[in-house]
Amino acid sequence: MARSKAYVASVGLTTIGDQWEESILDLAVKAARGALQGAPRKKPDQIFVGNMFSALGAGQEHLGAMVASALGLSGTPAVKVEAACSSGGSAFNVAYNLVRSGAIDSALVVGVEKMRDLEPEEVSRALAMAESAEYTQFVGATFAALNGLLARYYMEEMNVTRDELSSIPVIDHANAVTAAHAQFRKAITPEVVGRSQMIADPLRLFDCAPVGDGAAAAFLVNDNAASGSKKKMAEILGGRISTNEFSLYEREDMLDFKATRFAFRDALSMAGLSPGKMSFVEVHDAFSVVGALSLEAMGFSKRGQGSKDAKEGKYGRGSELPINTFGGLKARGHPVGATGMYQIAEAYLQLTDQAGKNQVEGAEYAATQNVGGVDSTSAVHVFGRAE
Amino acid sequence: MARSKAYVASVGLTTIGDQWEESILDLAVKAARGALQGAPRKKPDQIFVGNMFSALGAGQEHLGAMVASALGLSGTPAVKVEAACSSGGSAFNVAYNLVRSGAIDSALVVGVEKMRDLEPEEVSRALAMAESAEYTQFVGATFAALNGLLARYYMEEMNVTRDELSSIPVIDHANAVTAAHAQFRKAITPEVVGRSQMIADPLRLFDCAPVGDGAAAAFLVNDNAASGSKKKMAEILGGRISTNEFSLYEREDMLDFKATRFAFRDALSMAGLSPGKMSFVEVHDAFSVVGALSLEAMGFSKRGQGSKDAKEGKYGRGSELPINTFGGLKARGHPVGATGMYQIAEAYLQLTDQAGKNQVEGAEYAATQNVGGVDSTSAVHVFGRAE
Repeated sequence: MARSKAYVASVGLTTIGDQWEESILDLAVKAARGALQGAPRKKPDQIFVGNMFSALGAGQEHLGAMVASALGLSGTPAVKVEAACSSGGSAFNVAYNLVRSGAIDSALVVGVEKMRDLEPEEVSRALAMAESAEYTQFVGATFAALNGLLARYYMEEMNVTRDELSSIPVIDHANAVTAAHAQFRKAITPEVVGRSQMIADPLRLFDCAPVGDGAAAAFLVNDNAASGSKKKMAEILGGRISTNEFSLYEREDMLDFKATRFAFRDALSMAGLSPGKMSFVEVHDAFSVVGALSLEAMGFSKRGQGSKDAKEGKYGRGSELPINTFGGLKARGHPVGATGMYQIAEAYLQLTDQAGKNQVEGAEYAATQNVGGVDSTSAVHVFGRAE
Repeated sequence: MARSKAYVASVGLTTIGDQWEESILDLAVKAARGALQGAPRKKPDQIFVGNMFSALGAGQEHLGAMVASALGLSGTPAVKVEAACSSGGSAFNVAYNLVRSGAIDSALVVGVEKMRDLEPEEVSRALAMAESAEYTQFVGATFAALNGLLARYYMEEMNVTRDELSSIPVIDHANAVTAAHAQFRKAITPEVVGRSQMIADPLRLFDCAPVGDGAAAAFLVNDNAASGSKKKMAEILGGRISTNEFSLYEREDMLDFKATRFAFRDALSMAGLSPGKMSFVEVHDAFSVVGALSLEAMGFSKRGQGSKDAKEGKYGRGSELPINTFGGLKARGHPVGATGMYQIAEAYLQLTDQAGKNQVEGAEYAATQNVGGVDSTSAVHVFGRAE
């Protein structure tokens, strides 16, 4: 196969939060227009919309053609890609593989989710669809409950303390203070996390990513479509979707995030890089425990050490390996199907020196890790500066 | 771009109808196992699930990883692709482009829908999500109502009679009599259509595709993955997704199915074939009027002549251009997200001489046309015999 290089040429994103005045289409179009404005081509060859639950959230399916039409791009091939909370990263991966293989030269990828129009119990129902309706949902387990079970097991097996578990949320909130698009821009302490409302024992409110509306988009090009452009781009060096045994209870080792482990391994291998080359990592910490286990699966922390390393300062701003440089899922926010695209937009901003006060100085390489379910799917991409 | 040839190497499908004993996962797995059994490789490089409304139909999202895991293929990249009623054909198109470009060598595509677990009014709500929630759904238009408006306009503009409109359903039912997987295996007359219950004036019950559960799957390979196999395959000669102005009321000419017109034109151009080369066509006749307008958009009938040509015998079994050789959407059935994959599986069966009593003698080339919404999306593929 003759492969081209592939790049993120431009991005667009909305602030995350309560977007009462915007429909799911408004949000998608706003982010898409942002990306199109800076793109080297006026029209993408294909449009991909990453979204999990527009059916429940907005009574809407068929977002691909809908977004294409609203952008004045009817005619353009357009589909929605869904892989639960990893819908954004998965849509991006499909587009990336088509662009780098030359099947198409450019693509617009939009991740979008409208969550706040739902009542809290409806959000729970929507998120639970990431797990089996016949088994896990059937016994009444919410998505938070599953992660609570995981956190309890993790803390007991690995002797993780409450304060250690709180460290990743604390890093997220510190980073979000200066992030214009973040949902919560207020620093917190481990005490705040540890005293917050119990959600699913041992997980408390500040262990959990919030509910919010948002959309983020990127315009992808290969060498054909990039040629002649003087825009600063981020190169996509590798990327992979992997899957795990679907339900948590089916796994031999609940604490081994295999989908993330394999996806990062393969993405690095495509990039020809070692993990140590990463300047920062955007980690899918939908729950504090998921952030810790993700860092372990990617090999940045040893087994059981993810939260402990965070507490000891390994992942904070200015450290050897900053994570979640705009606040991660906990503080930037987690509009489910959009999250993977926020991570990618953030990596692009960093690697093109447009991250403002959140800039990681001298950032050369980055990874984004976007999980669906409890690591049932993981979409990992590795980026570098374009030459 | 260095392109490989691409083939459908094997297919699997379930019968369509009331599948009370099978969950959405059961159906998907059954069809997938059928395709895997005949495939030249044990594992696909990637899995794509075409589905429209598992969220409403089964309280389930994340079908990609779920199907992968249930097949014992966890690890394999897997996503769901959604484009309303064209979800099956659209998932296939994404896979086809990845396989022919060499990004991957093989793919398993499964189309699935579980509709009968829903109450009739819930089915209406689910189907309506193919159109705009903010505009079309908001004013109370069901999907059948939209197609009713279209049919009324078509009949008046083109002087189409009730009997002419009935001819495509009559062809479908005649073809389904000998189709083992079809939902309704009973021949009908135009009188039966014209006397059936009114659904959305002028559309009657027998103008409309039924509600049913089903799944169909195909295993795709390129030359790399096909090499050494002695299996009979169908070659995928071209394929394209196109989109139209999203909502019916936005279009300059409601009777011009532009998405289908462009998608078929581009698919033919990739194949290097003229429309006249087609031995048969699988047409997306979710409603009789949609079948007629699709045949016109593809150029097989002149404007306004789709139903009239059908009445005059142009599209029946043994005619110059048979359509819907296993019964089409009206009689084979229309489990929404699966339909595109049923069409493709049927084209494969014909082109590998496995169509039994439904065999189109000497079939050389075929087109499958799968529409989402009222031609808001159209996914068209052209197939031939593999050498």
